[in-house]
Amino acid sequence: LSRNKPETRKRAKKSIKVAFQGVIGAYSEQAALNFFKNETLELNPRKEFEDVFSAVKRKSVDYGIVPLENSLTGSIHQNYDLLLKNNIWVSGEIKLRISHNLLCKKSTKKQDIRNVYSHPQALMQCQGYFKSNNSLINTPYYDTAGSAAFVAESDDKTIAAIASKNAAKEYGLKIVASKIEDNEMNFTRFIVLENKPKPVSKTSGKTIVKTSILFSLKNIPGALYKALSIFAIRDIDLFKIESRPIPGSPWKYLFYLDFAGSFDDSHCQKAVEHLKEISELVKVLGSFPADLSKS
Amino acid sequence: LSRNKPETRKRAKKSIKVAFQGVIGAYSEQAALNFFKNETLELNPRKEFEDVFSAVKRKSVDYGIVPLENSLTGSIHQNYDLLLKNNIWVSGEIKLRISHNLLCKKSTKKQDIRNVYSHPQALMQCQGYFKSNNSLINTPYYDTAGSAAFVAESDDKTIAAIASKNAAKEYGLKIVASKIEDNEMNFTRFIVLENKPKPVSKTSGKTIVKTSILFSLKNIPGALYKALSIFAIRDIDLFKIESRPIPGSPWKYLFYLDFAGSFDDSHCQKAVEHLKEISELVKVLGSFPADLSKS
Repeated sequence: LSRNKPETRKRAKKSIKVAFQGVIGAYSEQAALNFFKNETLELNPRKEFEDVFSAVKRKSVDYGIVPLENSLTGSIHQNYDLLLKNNIWVSGEIKLRISHNLLCKKSTKKQDIRNVYSHPQALMQCQGYFKSNNSLINTPYYDTAGSAAFVAESDDKTIAAIASKNAAKEYGLKIVASKIEDNEMNFTRFIVLENKPKPVSKTSGKTIVKTSILFSLKNIPGALYKALSIFAIRDIDLFKIESRPIPGSPWKYLFYLDFAGSFDDSHCQKAVEHLKEISELVKVLGSFPADLSKS
Repeated sequence: LSRNKPETRKRAKKSIKVAFQGVIGAYSEQAALNFFKNETLELNPRKEFEDVFSAVKRKSVDYGIVPLENSLTGSIHQNYDLLLKNNIWVSGEIKLRISHNLLCKKSTKKQDIRNVYSHPQALMQCQGYFKSNNSLINTPYYDTAGSAAFVAESDDKTIAAIASKNAAKEYGLKIVASKIEDNEMNFTRFIVLENKPKPVSKTSGKTIVKTSILFSLKNIPGALYKALSIFAIRDIDLFKIESRPIPGSPWKYLFYLDFAGSFDDSHCQKAVEHLKEISELVKVLGSFPADLSKS
């Protein structure tokens, strides 16, 4: 058959393998599809975040994609811990608007829907919709995409799921209502993981390069002020700073810092060398083009 | 009856009303019991965090208690947003070790348990226990304490719940296994809310007073560095700093800052006045004795 379709063969590129946590149709999968929008993808769903990291480390995939922070629920410390533990490079980021949809089988009538399955967090984020559609009963499920798969497999014509548009497409469901979340300022920032550091082209046009680091300071007076002065005296702008207490060590913190610039640039390397003088630990996680689209 | 028990009457104090989000037996209730351990409490469970804030505002309770950050999952932005929106005073904090237990009816035999109900996050935090007890099936439920109530009400002798010790006591369940969570570094920091600012006694002995503020900076170069210098030049130590992007405003952030000292002290007031010179918004959330027990 392919012999009769030379144009298909011509267009076919080598597909790249991307691991993500969750099932097909998860928001992480959507983030991967958006990030690699011009590529042919082979998507690898994994059970745990840890499995995504180890797949990248073992090179059984080309990339991994994991969420790092959400605008409503904050930083995902579990993934920062995995970045600290594993030698892995962050080579990209993408922000995804989390928008929920009510999905059911094509043969189900909207007015027949009674039980709505989804992850409790998604159900909680759609409380307004449940209040104005009070015949619907919300029922907790493991994850959003999984609830869509469950509805697709069931013969029950009174059930629906809350999940992404992508999940609707994947499981052949119809979208009965879209954007049903209460707060539209719901964004998740995902990072792209690679096995080895990758050089980042310098700021070109509107692209701003961002470097992410983790550090913990020596117990000296005004340590954080000194750490930030290292960046201020070099006119390096900061994107994100977050302190996290290190359990068992009172007054000790692990800092998450994102600054403007590439680790390929010598002034950024010098800033990091300077930071090491007053730190117990400094780990450069990666440099990559910043996604400023949703902030 | 009470006439025959003068000692009870003698000990009886005026009970104080405390609102928390969730149902009786929730971790928030346990935080309230630990914080007000020498008081007679009248606990008010509320459906939403917002309801806790409005109960405090309307003075229908004396105090509210809400979680602000978890060591594994990060800051709870929703409650920071409610602190920003409402004129309310933070007058205390308490850290609670989140420890999960397997609970069932007293008549249920451990070997008969099949379905285990709890919040998906709690189920996820006990994966190791499920792996080594593979006859158990984990089943998602709205919340931990709610799953304990469900097990208590059910006639099914093959079900159990994962919840706090407090929930076991509250719903008359027995603890089949305790500390079943994979990661013992699971702490939640709760804050105590009051209607009006309350003076805090100065640092006495080992007590360290902490002040929490929110601020957003003017768009000037090195703004954060300048903000931190305000505290550094006054030798004010910082406990926590976190930046959070303000959606719709690129390069603009809302900062969460906890520093050592009471807002009753003039040097702290002067630091806040100084911060206002370079800020668009500064909001003092409260001053209170720091709970350094779990950090």
